[in-house]
Amino acid sequence: MTARGTFLTFEGIDGSGKSTQARLLADHLRREGRDVILTREPGGSAGAEEIRNLVLQGDPDRWSAETEILLFTAARRDHLERTIEPALAAGKVVICDRFADSTRMYQGMSRGDLRSLVDQLHNLMIGREPDLTLLIDMDPETGLSRAKGRQGAEERFEDFGVDLQLQMRAGFLALADEFQDRFRVVNGNRDMDSVAQDVTDIVMTSLR
Amino acid sequence: MTARGTFLTFEGIDGSGKSTQARLLADHLRREGRDVILTREPGGSAGAEEIRNLVLQGDPDRWSAETEILLFTAARRDHLERTIEPALAAGKVVICDRFADSTRMYQGMSRGDLRSLVDQLHNLMIGREPDLTLLIDMDPETGLSRAKGRQGAEERFEDFGVDLQLQMRAGFLALADEFQDRFRVVNGNRDMDSVAQDVTDIVMTSLR
Repeated sequence: MTARGTFLTFEGIDGSGKSTQARLLADHLRREGRDVILTREPGGSAGAEEIRNLVLQGDPDRWSAETEILLFTAARRDHLERTIEPALAAGKVVICDRFADSTRMYQGMSRGDLRSLVDQLHNLMIGREPDLTLLIDMDPETGLSRAKGRQGAEERFEDFGVDLQLQMRAGFLALADEFQDRFRVVNGNRDMDSVAQDVTDIVMTSLR
Repeated sequence: MTARGTFLTFEGIDGSGKSTQARLLADHLRREGRDVILTREPGGSAGAEEIRNLVLQGDPDRWSAETEILLFTAARRDHLERTIEPALAAGKVVICDRFADSTRMYQGMSRGDLRSLVDQLHNLMIGREPDLTLLIDMDPETGLSRAKGRQGAEERFEDFGVDLQLQMRAGFLALADEFQDRFRVVNGNRDMDSVAQDVTDIVMTSLR
């Protein structure tokens, strides 16, 4: 048996730069000689990617909030079983761009008072929490203009405007307060390299 | 407001003739002037049919039992919201070929001791039970030979052999015993018209 690995997640509003930071961290840790899996949600395994396509494409009213939560949970369960848990069992560092906190945030807060349902479903079917969660916190107007600069079919969650982004930012900060033991907030309103340096410092301390 | 409708389900092992009986009952009730919706699971709404395709096609080991239960529950939630509840609210008779009892049976009993998980997920996300469930009970060897006479891409649940069908028959009978208030067992080892007559008699008594 090898030692159990480390499970790191990145969270933040669209355009916060968290995907870039996840990639930069993976590069850094690999240069340090660590065995790293870089993955993302929704998706991250063959089955979960198919469920991702089902959820994110098409009419925004295609699924109710409850059905959407079930589909995200199904995708997460597959991702956990096929990608995350085997890598952790092999002692690897798993870096995941979004995880259950995004569901707590986007489905649990933006679409009615479903947070309790999200939590019950998570406890029943997922259970696992990250060892460390990096919240890349940034000004929503900047984040939104960055997100809108990108193209793609998956526009659903980037099409809600600045008011919702403001709520989401506040919601993520509230989650960081709720789960203080594993959340670290990084100021994302700076150049990419400065943010990356903070992320690396936090993670290297936690991996020691 | 119109009166609330009636929710009838058919259950049974593959090849038991339940789909045929569901159709015959729908025809009969329509001739009697009732407004009937005939539907099926998994599926029964546009989104649920897409989830059905995802679950039933491909490698049998494609999804774990837990992920499969989540996907079936997502499909059932969509089916309930988009098809069943609106029809019941409009006072219609809804006839559904398989519902939550099939998940209790196939996932809850055939793939490990997951019945408790199935029940918790059902209580959290579905809640609704049928007013009346018709279990078409039949000899598994006859059922299996009937099922194998059909063709199609969705072979997964019909490819497990006679031993499993024997277990499934016993499992459905145990469910009928557990939910005596809404289950009625019909002897399916007879010609189609005799079975249909029993089904009609039971349903007309319950609809009165």
